Amino acid sequence: MTVTGPKGFRAAGVAAGIKASGALDLALVVNDGPEQAAAGVFTRNVVKAAPVLWSQEVLRHKRLRAVVLNSGGANAATGPGGFQDTHATAEKVAELLEAGAIDVAVCSTGLIGERLPMPAVLSGVDAAVKALDTTSESALAAATAVMTTDTKPKQTLRSHDGGWSVGGFAKGAGMLAPNLATMLSVLTTDAVVDPDALDAALRAATRVTFDRLDVDGGTSTNDTVLVLASGASGVTPGLDEFTDVLTAACMDLVQQLRADSEGVTKEVDVVVRGAASEQDAINVGRTVAEDNLVKTALFGSDPNWGRVAMAVGRAQAEIDPGTLSISINGVTLFANGTTAADRSAADLSGRAIEIVIDLGVGASEATIFTTDLSHAYVEENSAYSS
Amino acid sequence: MTVTGPKGFRAAGVAAGIKASGALDLALVVNDGPEQAAAGVFTRNVVKAAPVLWSQEVLRHKRLRAVVLNSGGANAATGPGGFQDTHATAEKVAELLEAGAIDVAVCSTGLIGERLPMPAVLSGVDAAVKALDTTSESALAAATAVMTTDTKPKQTLRSHDGGWSVGGFAKGAGMLAPNLATMLSVLTTDAVVDPDALDAALRAATRVTFDRLDVDGGTSTNDTVLVLASGASGVTPGLDEFTDVLTAACMDLVQQLRADSEGVTKEVDVVVRGAASEQDAINVGRTVAEDNLVKTALFGSDPNWGRVAMAVGRAQAEIDPGTLSISINGVTLFANGTTAADRSAADLSGRAIEIVIDLGVGASEATIFTTDLSHAYVEENSAYSS
Repeated sequence: MTVTGPKGFRAAGVAAGIKASGALDLALVVNDGPEQAAAGVFTRNVVKAAPVLWSQEVLRHKRLRAVVLNSGGANAATGPGGFQDTHATAEKVAELLEAGAIDVAVCSTGLIGERLPMPAVLSGVDAAVKALDTTSESALAAATAVMTTDTKPKQTLRSHDGGWSVGGFAKGAGMLAPNLATMLSVLTTDAVVDPDALDAALRAATRVTFDRLDVDGGTSTNDTVLVLASGASGVTPGLDEFTDVLTAACMDLVQQLRADSEGVTKEVDVVVRGAASEQDAINVGRTVAEDNLVKTALFGSDPNWGRVAMAVGRAQAEIDPGTLSISINGVTLFANGTTAADRSAADLSGRAIEIVIDLGVGASEATIFTTDLSHAYVEENSAYSS
Repeated sequence: MTVTGPKGFRAAGVAAGIKASGALDLALVVNDGPEQAAAGVFTRNVVKAAPVLWSQEVLRHKRLRAVVLNSGGANAATGPGGFQDTHATAEKVAELLEAGAIDVAVCSTGLIGERLPMPAVLSGVDAAVKALDTTSESALAAATAVMTTDTKPKQTLRSHDGGWSVGGFAKGAGMLAPNLATMLSVLTTDAVVDPDALDAALRAATRVTFDRLDVDGGTSTNDTVLVLASGASGVTPGLDEFTDVLTAACMDLVQQLRADSEGVTKEVDVVVRGAASEQDAINVGRTVAEDNLVKTALFGSDPNWGRVAMAVGRAQAEIDPGTLSISINGVTLFANGTTAADRSAADLSGRAIEIVIDLGVGASEATIFTTDLSHAYVEENSAYSS
């Protein structure tokens, strides 16, 4: 069990006919309480999809009864008509659950710029409400129904000794460089957490997990992470404790997202240390993680630290070439402004690669999670519209 | 004739043995005067190659007798030893030309992090000085000797009715996203231009040419554009007139650089209009030009304007989704917040693609020159170190 691992939640995933393939494409997660606290973080992209605009609005009330999600279409850049479609979807869910539309968040993912087939969506909602269950099969169906170019569902469950847990799922394989939020993810907990604490915990957790994933620099129009708290365990954890478990659940999902991202052949940690500020460390890490010359070298298992040095040097951060050092997979290749070891000393033949960049100007650090840039990435993103 | 097109210049290109292949790898351009005004713009990368540090220093005197350039090694991230190598190269040129080392700029290009084979470099300087000539063959040899992954030399010559001209060459095929300067380029003119006017004209020209080329977001450690004025025509043009001709020469080289960049199958103009400021227009253009999901769609001849909208929405600029419009190859696909035409209406099958993004919030504009992201780019940048 995952999204339904914590007590108080039911889920469903159905084939509504939004995807031409007939695959699962509509998911529903319902919070049966007794509490219905909720928080969310959303894409910073200015071009926001209709479901993001809607869900941001309903989250002002800090509670959610349900989240309905669809793949097969992002409902982004679809104008007022697209917003009406999102509203109608929430209304339909609310009607069947005897709730208010204001208690229903909506998430969509898929091609930007196409309207959704609403008859399919609305009949899918009907079917999903009927299929709601607490089983792991229902949770898996929900996690599967949000997939686009993902090859497998991503689920997590972190249980605390105190008798409560955090569960959830996520989707996302391309357009992965969230900014304060990412792709689609729904997290659940049966801990008792008031809405403001839930919001604080979610922001703290995503800041070091979803926000540190950067596959291709693309911040989607639809990025959404929601967390719902049922309070069904009756246990009220401390905020730090809850944040730790929520962060672990988010990190688990992030690692699964990276491992299944488009065309990935290398899972790369870009660790930046010795930065003047955490923001500097993030800027350097993201610039390296997004650099196509670095990414293609990694695809070729080539420890080309010169390309890393180039990327570091163009980042927005306090950088002194004289104190900079670069290590790859444990071998320091560049230090004190010049070569420290022959590049052949670093072995990049495996799937896991760690690049450690020490800026040598401060005490702050950050790690960005990224991948290489492979032929398969180009193939997957040029062969058809997505 | 090109770099030797303007009167007062000689050039040479020789095989010094820096490249293992035995190809031409050392170029020399000499200004025989009567004047020796010079100006330069350099990479904004903090990790600057030794020849950049040297050339920036000598340019403080605003005059140059010669520029010596090598391919086969960037002499970047090579520490004090690398700087001494650059100095020794300039000294050698100066000695043979009976000038001061302070009158000799040095440019290098190739792999970052390797020391140059100095015996080969110094004997190459000997050979180059002996080969100096005003012929088009000499100019072509110089333009060829700076090539790395370039498949052809890039030369230009723009003559003015008033009896003076601007010539030059450039190299660069990858790591192309200059910031105030780019790759390596040497421009020459026989107009009479004082050093401060030359500097102003060069900054104005590069700002709308080299600075607007963005193939892969990579700002090299070695980017350098130099301009040398001999005054040999005896004609003193107006500053605006001279800037126009210099800009045309730079633009000619930029178009050649884009057309021959690594793995290019599409030459793409990203035109941003209606921006609140020119910087906003540049930011939006560069974000779209560097976006891998946009670039792979273009490789696939797919008018996926949704990816363009996503990239626009994550750019640092004043953006209103409601006033944004996106046209590709003359067809408006997105306007007023929603779809304006079916994407199939835009034909991207040709090599030239124009994306026009109207932000609808102001009167500023800028065009960024870019390419697609193809299998050949990945192949070229993963198969070997460069």
